[in-house]
Amino acid sequence: MLAVHLEQGRIQMRWRPRPRRPEGFALIRLRLAGICNTDLELARGYYAFRGTPGHEFVGEVVEADRKRLRGRRVVGEINLACGRCLWCRRGLGRHCPHRTVLGIAGHPGAFSEFFTLPERNLHVLPDSIPDEEAVFVEPLAAACEILEQVRIPPGAKVAVLGDGKLGLLVAQVLHREGLRVRLFGRHPEKLAIAEAAGVEIEARAVRPAAAFEWVIEATGSADGLREAVAMTRPRGTVILKSTVHELVKLDTAPVVVNEISLVGSRCGRFEPALELLRQRALRLREMITAEYPLAEAPRAFRAAARKGALKILLRAAAS
Amino acid sequence: MLAVHLEQGRIQMRWRPRPRRPEGFALIRLRLAGICNTDLELARGYYAFRGTPGHEFVGEVVEADRKRLRGRRVVGEINLACGRCLWCRRGLGRHCPHRTVLGIAGHPGAFSEFFTLPERNLHVLPDSIPDEEAVFVEPLAAACEILEQVRIPPGAKVAVLGDGKLGLLVAQVLHREGLRVRLFGRHPEKLAIAEAAGVEIEARAVRPAAAFEWVIEATGSADGLREAVAMTRPRGTVILKSTVHELVKLDTAPVVVNEISLVGSRCGRFEPALELLRQRALRLREMITAEYPLAEAPRAFRAAARKGALKILLRAAAS
Repeated sequence: MLAVHLEQGRIQMRWRPRPRRPEGFALIRLRLAGICNTDLELARGYYAFRGTPGHEFVGEVVEADRKRLRGRRVVGEINLACGRCLWCRRGLGRHCPHRTVLGIAGHPGAFSEFFTLPERNLHVLPDSIPDEEAVFVEPLAAACEILEQVRIPPGAKVAVLGDGKLGLLVAQVLHREGLRVRLFGRHPEKLAIAEAAGVEIEARAVRPAAAFEWVIEATGSADGLREAVAMTRPRGTVILKSTVHELVKLDTAPVVVNEISLVGSRCGRFEPALELLRQRALRLREMITAEYPLAEAPRAFRAAARKGALKILLRAAAS
Repeated sequence: MLAVHLEQGRIQMRWRPRPRRPEGFALIRLRLAGICNTDLELARGYYAFRGTPGHEFVGEVVEADRKRLRGRRVVGEINLACGRCLWCRRGLGRHCPHRTVLGIAGHPGAFSEFFTLPERNLHVLPDSIPDEEAVFVEPLAAACEILEQVRIPPGAKVAVLGDGKLGLLVAQVLHREGLRVRLFGRHPEKLAIAEAAGVEIEARAVRPAAAFEWVIEATGSADGLREAVAMTRPRGTVILKSTVHELVKLDTAPVVVNEISLVGSRCGRFEPALELLRQRALRLREMITAEYPLAEAPRAFRAAARKGALKILLRAAAS
């Protein structure tokens, strides 16, 4: 089978044997995958990653223990948890200390014609959700995670910083939730997507000081946190969605003096995201910049790294 | 009257006219005052402070509109709020954007034979609380503030980092609250105070990784936050009490990946602190390193800046 291989920042296509399916795991044939910023970071050499990346996917189950999964179109949660520890028993396998992560840490990823995942990680897709929208379920779940971590009162004003993929998803999710969202970004063509979804946008470099009780930082830049703190009211909350690979220089004095809370936020459960996809209420297709065949993954990675790019997809050849 | 004057990092004693008392304000004669780390920072030239510092005090009301205050021994909340804005109406005058702050910003401080404060800021002291304990009410309120901001379940394990004045108060307050507190510090003689109060202590440099759901950062150093984050479990909370005057270099990746919350925490209401003082359940006298007459404030400031010093007090001459 054809699979992407990433090593020391080099992306290649390789022929590999089909993976074997351990008990409790499904063998999945890839249909469509998305390149995420984390994949770009792996490609830049972070985490000393070596192997097949890819964790945003829609696939079809080829083999599985559970009959009801066979032949079905699925998406899958990316954390492979032990299922036994305290975290797993609390339903927080996403924080299992023994976890591996699909295409990120310790488990071969989805940029491959075939791959495996535990059957309990899979969600069968209803026919009403096309591949091109279902492929957004993982980052969409990460956007929904905010609402599981903090209780934002209905109608509250929320600032979202950053008009990249995650910022656009977060803005749309919070807008759908009935919050008064203002999305701050620098790319009129990206902001237009959120605006079409009903979100209020701000393309100028203005950052109103201490104006929001809720600020979502999704800029992906080390400066984003400083800006977010400055925009937050006393006793307000900043949700940190960006992971950046440098030390962030933070002036903690305004955080302490204004008693601001910073809440780190990562992956989420798929259920709320699937519900939003079922409602088909989000502008997702506009967020697709281009699609490449899986065999052209190296070119797709270059396209994804280009300034202004939003989602780049990889499509597997029909079997 | 005699007052401390601080300008461009120089501390002097000066003779000044007694302040005039505006309507709604009490004129207060100083009895005992405490030097706080913030005072030391003002003395080092931060905030471009110029004037009389001092915000930890016990005084006696000389003049006031309200009869019940006259001649009484009092402590006083340090934020002079407008009383009209949204924050003030929510009972959070500590965050009033129009506030001045006793001895810190815009209002002359308590290191002076006489000073003024709004009458509504004052709390009459019961005779049962001696000056030497009452003088801790302001930092004690800052320690109690943690319990107003986050709900820590009874019996939870809490790490407190830093065995300075604030760390010792925080550890004692949380221990009294029924939490399983472990105080991490480097000064056996300071840790011994907390130990005598029943707190578990750790003098070695060990910092168990991801071991606590609750970590209070009170080291006063820029490294403290990094240590605190490393000691916090996924989904755990770090309470930031330290203000440091440099940019803190923070690796935000573990905050995001482990979904850790950082909560800035500053001043608190005096009521819970006064209740603790009434119970006389804390080891406060052991925290007094030395006492100087007000007239010797420059010497007292030097003593307070010395390594190993805890609370340095300034006593006004009896009238």
